[in-house]
Amino acid sequence: MDRIPILRMGQYLLVTIQIDLYDRLATNLESDLVQAVSKTGARGVLIDISALSIVDSFMGRILNNIGSMSKIMDAETVVVGMQPAVAITLIELGLELKGVHTALNVEKGMELLAAKINSAYEDPDEDEAGTE
Amino acid sequence: MDRIPILRMGQYLLVTIQIDLYDRLATNLESDLVQAVSKTGARGVLIDISALSIVDSFMGRILNNIGSMSKIMDAETVVVGMQPAVAITLIELGLELKGVHTALNVEKGMELLAAKINSAYEDPDEDEAGTE
Repeated sequence: MDRIPILRMGQYLLVTIQIDLYDRLATNLESDLVQAVSKTGARGVLIDISALSIVDSFMGRILNNIGSMSKIMDAETVVVGMQPAVAITLIELGLELKGVHTALNVEKGMELLAAKINSAYEDPDEDEAGTE
Repeated sequence: MDRIPILRMGQYLLVTIQIDLYDRLATNLESDLVQAVSKTGARGVLIDISALSIVDSFMGRILNNIGSMSKIMDAETVVVGMQPAVAITLIELGLELKGVHTALNVEKGMELLAAKINSAYEDPDEDEAGTE
């Protein structure tokens, strides 16, 4: 398989990662996602990794990349469904997934995205608090 | 990978099939889905097959099985994202996917599910029209 499907759901994009992301698959996913955000005007990207029982630094970097790219395109990224063992491994590897938000499952991830998007509308200067 | 993740979204369950369903994977998916419907009280099952570029009679039977099992559990099944080549193959194989509904993409699938579920509430005797 060369591409991971990206599902559009309203203003969100949903991606389920079920297999290990080797180089080309990861590169394709990054470019497909950025293009999908651009084409659909999506405000949020949900990445489900509940099928992954192992994770390495490459996967961590890919998730961070996706988060940063989406952010530039004005979309928030939430990683959901992380298995406890994966969370342990990530921290032991020193990867903190700084570029993305995380939530327990898809429903909570959607709630988080909705909250993020609404708060962005209400307070666009959120990141520059204190500049006034 | 032994299991395909099943994502819960409100009253729907979403499954993205990205790899060929060999025997055990298919059996697991069937039992996992029925259990998920039972546990969550889901009213609809959405199966995205946009990543599948080929399909065989086994896959067709699995989709039909899932549709029939979900129906017994009072949930509708919609298959979405079918590639044109897959549709051609299914018909050439003589498989009509009678147990499931189909829609072009996830959004249209969700609309279809919502319509099916609402009409079921409004007219529970839909299937027995003419018995009055």
